[in-house]
Amino acid sequence: MIYFLSDYSQGAHPKVMEALLKTNMEHSGGYGLDEHCAHAAEMIKDMIGLDDCQVYMMVGGTPCNVTIMAASLRPYESAVALRTGHAYFHETGAVEATGHRIAAVDGVNGKMTPELIDKAWEEYEDEHTPLPKMVYISQPTECGSIYSKAELTAIRNKCRERNMLLYVDGARLGAALTAEDNDLSIGELAQLCDAFYIGATKNGALFGEALVVCNGGMNDHFRFMIKRQCGLLAKGRLIGVQFEALLEGGENCIYFEMAAHANKMAQMIRDELTRIGVRFYSASQTNQVFPMLPVSVVEELEKEFVFYRWAPEKNGMIPIRLVTAWATEKKDVEYLVRKIGQLYQK
Amino acid sequence: MIYFLSDYSQGAHPKVMEALLKTNMEHSGGYGLDEHCAHAAEMIKDMIGLDDCQVYMMVGGTPCNVTIMAASLRPYESAVALRTGHAYFHETGAVEATGHRIAAVDGVNGKMTPELIDKAWEEYEDEHTPLPKMVYISQPTECGSIYSKAELTAIRNKCRERNMLLYVDGARLGAALTAEDNDLSIGELAQLCDAFYIGATKNGALFGEALVVCNGGMNDHFRFMIKRQCGLLAKGRLIGVQFEALLEGGENCIYFEMAAHANKMAQMIRDELTRIGVRFYSASQTNQVFPMLPVSVVEELEKEFVFYRWAPEKNGMIPIRLVTAWATEKKDVEYLVRKIGQLYQK
Amino acid sequence: MIYFLSDYSQGAHPKVMEALLKTNMEHSGGYGLDEHCAHAAEMIKDMIGLDDCQVYMMVGGTPCNVTIMAASLRPYESAVALRTGHAYFHETGAVEATGHRIAAVDGVNGKMTPELIDKAWEEYEDEHTPLPKMVYISQPTECGSIYSKAELTAIRNKCRERNMLLYVDGARLGAALTAEDNDLSIGELAQLCDAFYIGATKNGALFGEALVVCNGGMNDHFRFMIKRQCGLLAKGRLIGVQFEALLEGGENCIYFEMAAHANKMAQMIRDELTRIGVRFYSASQTNQVFPMLPVSVVEELEKEFVFYRWAPEKNGMIPIRLVTAWATEKKDVEYLVRKIGQLYQK
Amino acid sequence: MIYFLSDYSQGAHPKVMEALLKTNMEHSGGYGLDEHCAHAAEMIKDMIGLDDCQVYMMVGGTPCNVTIMAASLRPYESAVALRTGHAYFHETGAVEATGHRIAAVDGVNGKMTPELIDKAWEEYEDEHTPLPKMVYISQPTECGSIYSKAELTAIRNKCRERNMLLYVDGARLGAALTAEDNDLSIGELAQLCDAFYIGATKNGALFGEALVVCNGGMNDHFRFMIKRQCGLLAKGRLIGVQFEALLEGGENCIYFEMAAHANKMAQMIRDELTRIGVRFYSASQTNQVFPMLPVSVVEELEKEFVFYRWAPEKNGMIPIRLVTAWATEKKDVEYLVRKIGQLYQK
Repeated sequence: MIYFLSDYSQGAHPKVMEALLKTNMEHSGGYGLDEHCAHAAEMIKDMIGLDDCQVYMMVGGTPCNVTIMAASLRPYESAVALRTGHAYFHETGAVEATGHRIAAVDGVNGKMTPELIDKAWEEYEDEHTPLPKMVYISQPTECGSIYSKAELTAIRNKCRERNMLLYVDGARLGAALTAEDNDLSIGELAQLCDAFYIGATKNGALFGEALVVCNGGMNDHFRFMIKRQCGLLAKGRLIGVQFEALLEGGENCIYFEMAAHANKMAQMIRDELTRIGVRFYSASQTNQVFPMLPVSVVEELEKEFVFYRWAPEKNGMIPIRLVTAWATEKKDVEYLVRKIGQLYQK
Repeated sequence: MIYFLSDYSQGAHPKVMEALLKTNMEHSGGYGLDEHCAHAAEMIKDMIGLDDCQVYMMVGGTPCNVTIMAASLRPYESAVALRTGHAYFHETGAVEATGHRIAAVDGVNGKMTPELIDKAWEEYEDEHTPLPKMVYISQPTECGSIYSKAELTAIRNKCRERNMLLYVDGARLGAALTAEDNDLSIGELAQLCDAFYIGATKNGALFGEALVVCNGGMNDHFRFMIKRQCGLLAKGRLIGVQFEALLEGGENCIYFEMAAHANKMAQMIRDELTRIGVRFYSASQTNQVFPMLPVSVVEELEKEFVFYRWAPEKNGMIPIRLVTAWATEKKDVEYLVRKIGQLYQK
Repeated sequence: MIYFLSDYSQGAHPKVMEALLKTNMEHSGGYGLDEHCAHAAEMIKDMIGLDDCQVYMMVGGTPCNVTIMAASLRPYESAVALRTGHAYFHETGAVEATGHRIAAVDGVNGKMTPELIDKAWEEYEDEHTPLPKMVYISQPTECGSIYSKAELTAIRNKCRERNMLLYVDGARLGAALTAEDNDLSIGELAQLCDAFYIGATKNGALFGEALVVCNGGMNDHFRFMIKRQCGLLAKGRLIGVQFEALLEGGENCIYFEMAAHANKMAQMIRDELTRIGVRFYSASQTNQVFPMLPVSVVEELEKEFVFYRWAPEKNGMIPIRLVTAWATEKKDVEYLVRKIGQLYQK
Repeated sequence: MIYFLSDYSQGAHPKVMEALLKTNMEHSGGYGLDEHCAHAAEMIKDMIGLDDCQVYMMVGGTPCNVTIMAASLRPYESAVALRTGHAYFHETGAVEATGHRIAAVDGVNGKMTPELIDKAWEEYEDEHTPLPKMVYISQPTECGSIYSKAELTAIRNKCRERNMLLYVDGARLGAALTAEDNDLSIGELAQLCDAFYIGATKNGALFGEALVVCNGGMNDHFRFMIKRQCGLLAKGRLIGVQFEALLEGGENCIYFEMAAHANKMAQMIRDELTRIGVRFYSASQTNQVFPMLPVSVVEELEKEFVFYRWAPEKNGMIPIRLVTAWATEKKDVEYLVRKIGQLYQK
């Protein structure tokens, strides 16, 4: 079987494994207080060109989302997210478990907009309603599209107007940064939001994300909060070591190389399927592709490929999700599109 | 100024005050463990014709909603409510404060339907999503309409199909039970839902609601839960004494008499305004009326009457909310409709 | 039966009832935003001689304790309390329900001391431990003793040294303020702590406490917090009206008169029992008395009087709790001590 | 510098790294739903001889403790733990963050006893107090001692009598199982408690613990709870793969081999220091040693060795903690004890 199931179904890039092996017998302080984490944090600050931010090495995306919200929101404050947003849709109410509402709004083409933020405020009146204080978005979005600099700036301006914090879930940030038509550098992203994370679980690490808190006011006793929310890893240096390996070499680092490769593989799928007339469930610019295919084609494909059916069948068509990753091989993509081509045009 | 602002802006019915005075110097056990609470609970069980239910004397509606959800839901379970539902819209995230999501859906004419419950399940997948376990509705709804027996039965059946609990917020239950076209007795309501409360704060008491838990499985250590959620009143008997006074006389009790009066006053307003061509923001069958009036009329009315503007002006019209209560005087209603008539037809 | 069970087993002082009756048909804004609450708050500010504090009319003591802690503590912060402290011992974990630890220490003669605060800090190390941020004490203590000005000042100084907030539970504050050997005025109390409440449930009201927040930093969106913690009463003015009646007349108000009476009745018991050689389980200066009596005496008393056995029998003796209140009659006290005298000396 | 700082300061056993490398490019299901996790779970069930239990692959110890308590306790229920217990002392209130109290008791020689459980119940009365429902202990204890079969059985019996659950934190379970005078097999442990975890972070893994839930009633929607408490790892198989490597070979597996080695190194230290007259701060039977040494000796040692000072200096003596691990080398131990010998006897 050939896998287009997810970008976290395999292990880590060989260079990451190599770094883990090489440092395996070092002694170091626990819980992220070690030289590798400190060094990785410096590399990240250099990369984004911000000195007065804090970088925390986190175990996963849910701990990032939950900890930043629990740490930044007063008890009566809520966050606004898309209904499809990961923190709302796919984390079993982990944010609510800390006592905060996530107010869900329906996206416009899968994206947050200033108008949607205004709409969320319709649920606010006074002390009888939660106070919206944070906007949560993902870059790229859950359906693979990316926010342009103009779009993110507009959201940021609305946040300032509303006195809200802006937090960006970057589980697949590499894919956004290396997307062909991306015009938003990581430095600009850092300038525009209050906090974001650089995801590595879905881009070549065993696990780990680097949470960057740009807004100093959000850093209060943050390590207490990570521990309280179950997110502090004993051997925290493992995350630092991985980020060192991922970011080594600056612009030529494997973090960008892997993401660019995944994007390129996805683009090949999009180009080929578009050429033969396939339509897409949602527009993506990164490493996820959502073609709508006839039921019979999907069933045939499932004999050789592994992927998710993304939504129920409608009018004989099923949207599927194909995800490419750093390790996706070109020959497998070629075989996939050839196969779809044959089946589709029958 | 003449008030049509709310049904909780005045004190209690004279007979309630009299009962409080009469029992004022009695000694009794604290925290609701007294003979008045026990007696009031028996009166309620008689009224609804259910023996194997539990009745708790509660301080207010929010404590009812929060305690029943915190007590009945497992940590990973959520409740489904209308976006306009009180527990979602008007309680400052008090339910989320206990760690549970309320998933909000947009009502159909201000009501919950089986289809909307199904829709809420679209947010459920597996262990990555909260599990919807309770449906929360209000009888009457927040806009004054009431569920018919058929409608409630349909919701109940959907709940059974989905293995969900059905909880009814009865802050204004008296108004529903005495509405002209109501076909749902309190006994039938009790049969159809797992828990509900009989609101008195908005119907002639100083404060207090009687929470009726019909589903035995939801009673586990419930008094512990009331205390934990800050809802146990030291002089709990005050609520029992008030309910004794409210329900004395069975079908002829002042609880029904007051609610019927409030409804009748509202109906007078609806009838008169309809006659002169006024349209309504939402259809109500109980003691709230939502006429849409020209801005100039509203501004003129505000010189003599107190009420809420219910939504922003649109096309020169403003929906206002007029609430009648047990103490609303007929002459004031007559004056109000005469005044609106004069202003409206200018 | 004659009751020495508690100071909340009866209703309210006649003047309180009168005030409620007199204002019963007034219309007023809901949820404590009314003229009575505003006026009562002003009366309290005058009484304590502080202008820049906030006064909130609360339904009960547990809502006070829980709301102030949930509002003032960051998620990783804890409160320090005596093991016998109400918020730790008698509120079913309502504070923990908001996500905060109460670290319990064993009192020295039922009191908190600077040394005990230091001891609580032994449980603090770094981001792996909760950060103690608030000291919670009761005035009078749970066993009826009172903190002197010197004792409270010492606690306050330790709090300043430790960067902690000091909060005083005043469920029976009237009894402390009118105790014979009290040297701490309410104005001095307000100067020494960050927040405290003036309890009325246990001193002649139907219900209600006035929470005084002296430290401006703790007032952030406080009404949102009251609502979120289920403590906002719809007819909030009821609490304001009661405090107006309780405090009317300044130093001659019934609030002090009632507390002084209760203390005096307790003192009569203490004096008489001391005279005949009875020993006490704990020293009290207010309206609770804890004599240790032979099992046979207790059993005999229970035929005519209602009170709590306070701790298990030991060496044939049982400590009981006798509570006097504003409505305790002198003749009943005289009968009680005469009876004990007869039984004890047999 | 030579490290005796902790058993989690280095990476993983070479065989664990080898297994991770070998499986690195496999595709597998996410979040612990993969063949390696399933296989590791089977290996564990075989080892403990229990079929009807569930095994969950967890990221760390705090997620284990928090998830099992949040999943098993009703909101009003509390856990009882030693003040030194990890879940109370070293997890920043992570359990309280889920709304539950941990009631702390002072250990007898660092251990829980049936009498201490009874003592915790003195804080229980009725609906005004949390209901103690779980006993939390660690095997070995935080100071390195172990519960004998008789001791654990006595605790278990007390739990049954009190209708409480027994949960065992096995962060260093390997060290207990391989301790020289241990008489409690892992199978017996599983029979005696309701849930426990087999810690690997502190015994040769990069990270990961296997939570074994023996009491079927505690498994309700457990994976929902893991996700809600931030503990579900995307590449969950990493934990499964590590446990496969750790347990391969049954009784001869490296998990036991490493733990036995660490114990043996610790025993060497204990024996040698005892021989020269050093006294110990607390008795340990496993891989932690707590000698009390003169200040001057400690200061001299700190020039060449890394370890924690365990408590403040008293009478010129400082208790230090020396931890051995799977990778501790005999020559380093020999050098350490020689060095202490020289310094101590000067």
